[in-house]
Amino acid sequence: MRELLEKIAAEGEVVADGVLKVDRFLNHQVDPHLMKRIGEEFAAQFHRERPTKVLTLESSGISPALMAAYELGVPLVVARKRRPLTMTSEVYRAEVYSFTKKETNEIIVSRPLLDSSDRVLIIDDFLANGQAALGMVEVVRQAGADVVGIGIVIEKAFQDGGRLLRSQGFRVVSLARIASLSDGVIRFHEEVMS
Amino acid sequence: MRELLEKIAAEGEVVADGVLKVDRFLNHQVDPHLMKRIGEEFAAQFHRERPTKVLTLESSGISPALMAAYELGVPLVVARKRRPLTMTSEVYRAEVYSFTKKETNEIIVSRPLLDSSDRVLIIDDFLANGQAALGMVEVVRQAGADVVGIGIVIEKAFQDGGRLLRSQGFRVVSLARIASLSDGVIRFHEEVMS
Repeated sequence: MRELLEKIAAEGEVVADGVLKVDRFLNHQVDPHLMKRIGEEFAAQFHRERPTKVLTLESSGISPALMAAYELGVPLVVARKRRPLTMTSEVYRAEVYSFTKKETNEIIVSRPLLDSSDRVLIIDDFLANGQAALGMVEVVRQAGADVVGIGIVIEKAFQDGGRLLRSQGFRVVSLARIASLSDGVIRFHEEVMS
Repeated sequence: MRELLEKIAAEGEVVADGVLKVDRFLNHQVDPHLMKRIGEEFAAQFHRERPTKVLTLESSGISPALMAAYELGVPLVVARKRRPLTMTSEVYRAEVYSFTKKETNEIIVSRPLLDSSDRVLIIDDFLANGQAALGMVEVVRQAGADVVGIGIVIEKAFQDGGRLLRSQGFRVVSLARIASLSDGVIRFHEEVMS
């Protein structure tokens, strides 16, 4: 998605080896018009799969996922990292290991929000090792529902997540694929391929 | 906002004394079309104040705040509760005391995202004791910027937050005001007044 690649090139920043900072438009500060465009793109890519729900993980996935759910006309379910006071129902839960933080966290979805009739589109802001996406896949499986696709805003194509998810048969659509962040330079998969 | 009151009446649930569960449409599962309508309503209420940024707190504030920022055509800034790896800049920070959880948490905003030229519209999903809103007000003050208004989706009018913020001169617009949750019944301020 050209508009997104241009934004990453203009405002993204490599802050450490393999770490891309996009807090001007995607996670800390959010560009609502870009999110709308991203939502439209995900809807165009996945509407034929007739998703009944969009699933994301708090909190950086919410903005692109909300716009995708809006365009598709379906509810958004936000998997929680901590159980809020009001979550009184039984839950689906999965463990997510973070390679960066070297810690395991739980993700939780209230059972009444997903059932076996659901066709779930998973959306997240980043795909690196794929652990967050696999955690969401596990939650969908616990519900007996189907994952109809995985939409990613920025895939770090030099890490294993994309390969892992695609090898399990999931259709993964990444709107930007980063080939490398070496030497502080952002190289897109698209330019490496061309 | 009639549509919101109807949704709360139909799908909200009183789970404990003073605790309203709205996880079918506002925080755990999110209704994107209702969020769009909420965004339009906030934009209609506040556009004359010419906000330059919308500020909210992760994660339940993001959905209504993103739609408000979209309608107003300005960036959304999401105050963080934990400092992410990529937050390498200097930060504004404020402490927020939670009466429900009886704990103090920090909220953090990266300095480059707010400056003294900003006119900030604060948006949050709930207003109870007002501590989260006051934390965001403090962050805006540290930036030397102005708070041009506070937009709340659901105000618990039987708690002190609304009175506290209004007594400090802030224009607070709440789209739904709950007068009482006693005996498991949701009573709106509007019906108590009529």
